[in-house]
Amino acid sequence: MIAHTLHVDLGERSYPIYIGRGLLGNAELLCRHIGGKQVVLVSNDTVAPLYAQRVLDALGPRERVTEVVLPDGEQHKTLDTLGRIFDRVLADGHNRTTTFVALGGGVVGDVTGFAAACYQRGVDFVQLPTTLLSQVDSSVGGKTGVNHALGKNMIGAFHQPRAVLIDIDTLHTLPGRELSAGLAEVIKYGLICDAGFHAWLLDNLPRLMAMEEAALAEAIERSCASKAAVVAADEREGGVRAILNLGHTFGHAIETHQGYGEWLHGEAVAAGMVLAARLSAARGWIAGDDVEALIALLRQAKLPVAPPTGMSVADFRTLMARDKKVLDGRLRLVLLREIGAATVVDDVSDDELAQLFSAA
Amino acid sequence: MIAHTLHVDLGERSYPIYIGRGLLGNAELLCRHIGGKQVVLVSNDTVAPLYAQRVLDALGPRERVTEVVLPDGEQHKTLDTLGRIFDRVLADGHNRTTTFVALGGGVVGDVTGFAAACYQRGVDFVQLPTTLLSQVDSSVGGKTGVNHALGKNMIGAFHQPRAVLIDIDTLHTLPGRELSAGLAEVIKYGLICDAGFHAWLLDNLPRLMAMEEAALAEAIERSCASKAAVVAADEREGGVRAILNLGHTFGHAIETHQGYGEWLHGEAVAAGMVLAARLSAARGWIAGDDVEALIALLRQAKLPVAPPTGMSVADFRTLMARDKKVLDGRLRLVLLREIGAATVVDDVSDDELAQLFSAA
Repeated sequence: MIAHTLHVDLGERSYPIYIGRGLLGNAELLCRHIGGKQVVLVSNDTVAPLYAQRVLDALGPRERVTEVVLPDGEQHKTLDTLGRIFDRVLADGHNRTTTFVALGGGVVGDVTGFAAACYQRGVDFVQLPTTLLSQVDSSVGGKTGVNHALGKNMIGAFHQPRAVLIDIDTLHTLPGRELSAGLAEVIKYGLICDAGFHAWLLDNLPRLMAMEEAALAEAIERSCASKAAVVAADEREGGVRAILNLGHTFGHAIETHQGYGEWLHGEAVAAGMVLAARLSAARGWIAGDDVEALIALLRQAKLPVAPPTGMSVADFRTLMARDKKVLDGRLRLVLLREIGAATVVDDVSDDELAQLFSAA
Repeated sequence: MIAHTLHVDLGERSYPIYIGRGLLGNAELLCRHIGGKQVVLVSNDTVAPLYAQRVLDALGPRERVTEVVLPDGEQHKTLDTLGRIFDRVLADGHNRTTTFVALGGGVVGDVTGFAAACYQRGVDFVQLPTTLLSQVDSSVGGKTGVNHALGKNMIGAFHQPRAVLIDIDTLHTLPGRELSAGLAEVIKYGLICDAGFHAWLLDNLPRLMAMEEAALAEAIERSCASKAAVVAADEREGGVRAILNLGHTFGHAIETHQGYGEWLHGEAVAAGMVLAARLSAARGWIAGDDVEALIALLRQAKLPVAPPTGMSVADFRTLMARDKKVLDGRLRLVLLREIGAATVVDDVSDDELAQLFSAA
């Protein structure tokens, strides 16, 4: 049952996002967007046992169906994994009419999307995101790619899916910690571009934590709509799209410092958003009460609100200097002019950073 | 000294091709198209000793210059080589303002262009092609990629360069066999879309074989212009662009059968073009004399005019069935309606193929 349908408007590359229950088993909907006779279903060894058969049944008999099951985990988001996908797909003889289907979270989506971007220089791609984070983040934007030992997402492509099917039933098998990590990104959208949604979250977060389906579908829809509006204005990340990185520059530094996989991405972003909010408040842009309300919201969502103990301002400086968003040696950070309006600055001084960490 | 400048018209992704002498050392021209402070120069161990220093001198001092020298040869056009380029580029800390510069033939150009397409989801790319084949083929079209053990160019991206500088001085260090291989593609352009150029080649091929610079520059310019016209009409290879594959479906089968590197790509294409011409003549589209004139032209260019002995029609059938251009099981081939006008057909019968090989 489709609760919401959203159209991501990117000219020739426009596509629909469906949000609802039972979508993984919705044969009509899947087959409407996978017209070809060949399908490559990519998943991981956590998600495949739960949902792969449901999708395969819905896809029905085809000329060629290859199921690739990756080991679960961010450490497998590598060029080597990509190579192993191509080994399977070529051995099975898929041609350029094939469709890659990503069934899983952000890692599966990013790797599969990148594989689809590169296979025979680009084939169709459909996303079935099964984590809250991937549903509200990777569903929109077309970013695909893999990590390198020296940096996250350093190798990739922009490749838009043909359709995204968000089945909120999958959230019932998601560990609580990962649901929280997804909520960090949901909360981000209110902060950067939708004050009304932020107010809604202040009222409705308990319904999300209680897994109320109507509330989940609403939160996912508003998050995707926010991201779609930002991406439509800036598909290739030249300008305004950068506001999507609220909390992410700090967050990536935390993830790198702790080693990938120790803190979940959303957890690191949550702590990073608090730092960005504190910096914004120190500039007088948002109120101290706004920061406190954000911290209370994140705590309700069982998210961290401060960096890991033992991480110094020097650690942040070193790690952030390596960020993709550093241009010509200037650190760029997303701050909040007000709740619901983010801006990118490149003039944060060493003093501001030092004070931020002495206060935190 | 620039002899010709050609503009490839692709909207936002338009770029110039310069053809002339001494361009690799032309600091003004290079720096005009490489504005950033960071450069990755990729070459191979044959070309680098001859020309890399000249390019590095012309680039002048920059914040970051990384020289990557790959082993020479098609067998290194792999995902592994791509990984090694990223290792170097990330270790040296290049950000997304960097420019990848490809100095070499088609392999260097394809791998470097693909690396540029994927590095941080896409950075600038400038091509300095040093073989006749890469000058007339890879300069236009934006195709980049690597091979897989199960097929050529199976992994890649469309990524347009910012500029292409064709220095015909480099042809003086090119082995004669590779010059001939490049001429196969030059001859192809006349056949598929420029009868006037075909007539020019029938008169001027001896000047090309004698390395007359004005003739070389003219042949390169007309080849690039032909390819640019075809690509501009069909950037992503949906339709008319397929005519660029005249001789290539047969040619790929020959290369695969012999093992990559035994026959040069251009040599296989030459033999493939004769087969396509014979098929076209058998349908009454071109004259038998046209076929004979083509064979004479290819012989003058020291190119093969028939498949390797021992390759049967069954070998061709099996290998061509695996071609990227096979859609829904139908073999697609480029034939000549007349000299200077190619067309794609998908109705070549088993009988036609059998007669072709019994006659050849």
